[in-house]
Amino acid sequence: MVSNTAGKVIRCKAAVAWEAGKPLVIQEVEVAPPQADEVRIKILFTSLCHTDVYFWEAKGQTPVFPRILGHEAGGIVESVGEGVTDLKPGDHVLPVFTGECKECQHCKSEESNMCDLLRINTDRGVMISDGKSRFSINGKPIYHFVGTSTFSEYTVVHVGCVAKINPAAPLDKVCVLSCGISTGLGATLNVAKPTKGSSVAIFGLGAVGLAAAEGARLAGASRIIGVDLNSKRFTEAKKFGVTEFVNPKDYDKPVQEAIAEMTNGGVDRSVECTGSLSAMISAFECVHDGWGVAVLVGVPNKDDAFKTHPINLLNERTLKGTFFGNYKPRSDLPSVVEMYMNKELELEKFITHEVPFSEINKAFEYMLKGESLRCIIRMPA
Amino acid sequence: MVSNTAGKVIRCKAAVAWEAGKPLVIQEVEVAPPQADEVRIKILFTSLCHTDVYFWEAKGQTPVFPRILGHEAGGIVESVGEGVTDLKPGDHVLPVFTGECKECQHCKSEESNMCDLLRINTDRGVMISDGKSRFSINGKPIYHFVGTSTFSEYTVVHVGCVAKINPAAPLDKVCVLSCGISTGLGATLNVAKPTKGSSVAIFGLGAVGLAAAEGARLAGASRIIGVDLNSKRFTEAKKFGVTEFVNPKDYDKPVQEAIAEMTNGGVDRSVECTGSLSAMISAFECVHDGWGVAVLVGVPNKDDAFKTHPINLLNERTLKGTFFGNYKPRSDLPSVVEMYMNKELELEKFITHEVPFSEINKAFEYMLKGESLRCIIRMPA
Ligand SMILES: NC(=O)c1ccc[n+]([C@@H]2O[C@H](COP(=O)([O-])OP(=O)(O)OC[C@H]3O[C@@H](n4cnc5c(N)ncnc54)[C@H](O)[C@@H]3O)[C@@H](O)[C@H]2O)c1
Ligand SMILES: NC(=O)c1ccc[n+]([C@@H]2O[C@H](COP(=O)([O-])OP(=O)(O)OC[C@H]3O[C@@H](n4cnc5c(N)ncnc54)[C@H](O)[C@@H]3O)[C@@H](O)[C@H]2O)c1
Ligand SMILES: [Zn+2]
Ligand SMILES: [Zn+2]
Ligand SMILES: [Zn+2]
Ligand SMILES: [Zn+2]
Repeated sequence: MVSNTAGKVIRCKAAVAWEAGKPLVIQEVEVAPPQADEVRIKILFTSLCHTDVYFWEAKGQTPVFPRILGHEAGGIVESVGEGVTDLKPGDHVLPVFTGECKECQHCKSEESNMCDLLRINTDRGVMISDGKSRFSINGKPIYHFVGTSTFSEYTVVHVGCVAKINPAAPLDKVCVLSCGISTGLGATLNVAKPTKGSSVAIFGLGAVGLAAAEGARLAGASRIIGVDLNSKRFTEAKKFGVTEFVNPKDYDKPVQEAIAEMTNGGVDRSVECTGSLSAMISAFECVHDGWGVAVLVGVPNKDDAFKTHPINLLNERTLKGTFFGNYKPRSDLPSVVEMYMNKELELEKFITHEVPFSEINKAFEYMLKGESLRCIIRMPA
Repeated sequence: MVSNTAGKVIRCKAAVAWEAGKPLVIQEVEVAPPQADEVRIKILFTSLCHTDVYFWEAKGQTPVFPRILGHEAGGIVESVGEGVTDLKPGDHVLPVFTGECKECQHCKSEESNMCDLLRINTDRGVMISDGKSRFSINGKPIYHFVGTSTFSEYTVVHVGCVAKINPAAPLDKVCVLSCGISTGLGATLNVAKPTKGSSVAIFGLGAVGLAAAEGARLAGASRIIGVDLNSKRFTEAKKFGVTEFVNPKDYDKPVQEAIAEMTNGGVDRSVECTGSLSAMISAFECVHDGWGVAVLVGVPNKDDAFKTHPINLLNERTLKGTFFGNYKPRSDLPSVVEMYMNKELELEKFITHEVPFSEINKAFEYMLKGESLRCIIRMPA
């Protein structure tokens, strides 16, 4: 199947961020054909993640504007560039903000997913092959975002950042696996690895933390303790297998001590999904000595320093961090989609809102108000 | 076999520490019979470890004097107290500073060796059953040290702190497995677990660090990078499989950066055996992102805080600590003795000095001058 647009510039609608914090503008852009090792994808559904909001607000960062944001999405390959053999027009795919070249030391390692070539880069804004953008308006380039820029009807992505998935999978559901949900799920299943009957504390009950809780439930954990400063999150969290709730504000001692008292010395595993330094420290210090494992997921501030007394480590605790839940995007994501297809993993409960592309700015509002977990943005048919 | 001293007080020679930093005094002490769950051991060989020196100097600690120090030793059971069924007079044993009750949650866990009942306690100075000492001079109690007090011809130890070993094993060699050597060896083999062909950095080339290097050699590591501030340690370290040497003083950048440059981004594993906070941080930050594992062994100061940017964790590094190399003293130590018996593990190279019991203070001098790795102290025949 060769589309009749292959090799040509496509004119389509995209939501352009022109300035930090200002509403996106839906307008016509030109999308150049994919170059070597690139694919052009027709996006059908995209969803909004905090990272989009974070780089849209651009607080404390080098602002890169005008830019097309978006990195959680599902689509269909429209055409492929030179040398692309793994993908062909018509394939159903999830673009991912981090890639897998399959050739570097990380891709060859069984343990790492931090590809040397295609690891996330939030400042770049251009394609790696030629340092240029594939998006333009009247000849003026519009920057990419983390190699995906899914807030557009068509986008160009490096082949290493594209997971080919089961064409039977509904893209309006599995698109959320492009980022946050896989991150939380993998943090638990691939990194914390709780055993059957164990206790797990989840810090932060946003989409990532709830996916981490879902992982704990799938692994057979018997106690899943949800920790959040916002007690409103607790109602929703019950749907995700969380069995107990702790709000650090309810205690006049560090929350790690409260958790240790609830659990005869500490939980077996903890997963931090907040980005808050104090939560990272509490998540580490609340695991049981002798065998406890804490996993950090939240993205910290530039000047943060993780601090703990070394004796907490010598007492046989383990501290780890993870990036995209340790999933290799091309190799592993298709099987996470299969978990959904086999009904092991429920995605519907993460999807709290849906808007047409024309109302994309509403998705930002829902997230900023803390009302949504995931809002699906439907592209025009 | 029942000894004719069973049930009676034994008068024998012990080296008593009367005051912080003052030479030990060899004099007659009375050793009471073992109570329930205790055994009395005739010590044949003991060796000096830094921890003895540390509590003898008693800097920045609650001083516990008069006291009988010593915790690396080999001996023979003389008699056993009520309820002791695992050991009988004549058994060859290694007393250990940390125990294994076999009943608490740690002992039942496959991962932990931090027994709730018999975990190291450096302040106690008395037996746990009745809060009393088994040593006295003219009715005045002399305190125990970490439940072992091996600088005595006879000592009383909780049965949970005694490893029964192969009677064919030479006690003048395997006595060093009671503490430091097993700690370093286990830190690598049980916790860091380097794979064949991997790179390992060892921080601190004292007895513990050299045992960690020995573990790396046994595991088949191909690069073993020794890091020490004292370049004199490098000559000796060659015997222990160390292939390269780094002195942090030779660089005007943090040593972790120098190591990353030598190793294409970092070592696969590191083991810190110094007790220095800056070495702990360097040992963590010098492991490769994606898969690196750092293991802390050194005992830190009271007010130390381990500090690192959380991004170093999120980039998929793992930080762990270990206590006694994660060996369970009763369950695992006999098999470490067998490694020596099978000539997999060489202990002779750790033993740089030997003195008769009457010259025990010389062992302290050798260690304080940094001349010895291990000095064996021979008890009177
Ligand atoms: N490592 C990765 O690959 C990766 C990928 C995606 C997202 N993330 C990060 O994961 C984190 C969570 O993402 P999200 O989308 O679920 O965010 P979110 O804002 O929806 O949820 C975070 C939750 O943490 C709670 N929280 C904040 N500080 C807390 C504290 N000190 N103690 C307890 N709870 C606290 C908040 O109330 C909120 O409910 C973010 O830091 C995000 O950047 C990491
Ligand atoms: N966790 C446990 O179960 C356990 C058991 C025994 C010993 N230990 C600890 O292990 C550590 C090592 O014991 P040892 O007997 O081998 O001590 P040691 O004093 O013989 O050796 C320590 C070495 O570290 C070097 N060193 C110090 N600071 C350094 C730095 N910043 N960078 C590089 N090298 C540095 C010293 O020069 C020395 O050669 C001690 O802290 C000891 O308390 C822990
Ligand atoms: Zn790669
Ligand atoms: Zn995201
Ligand atoms: Zn125990
Ligand atoms: Zn010791």
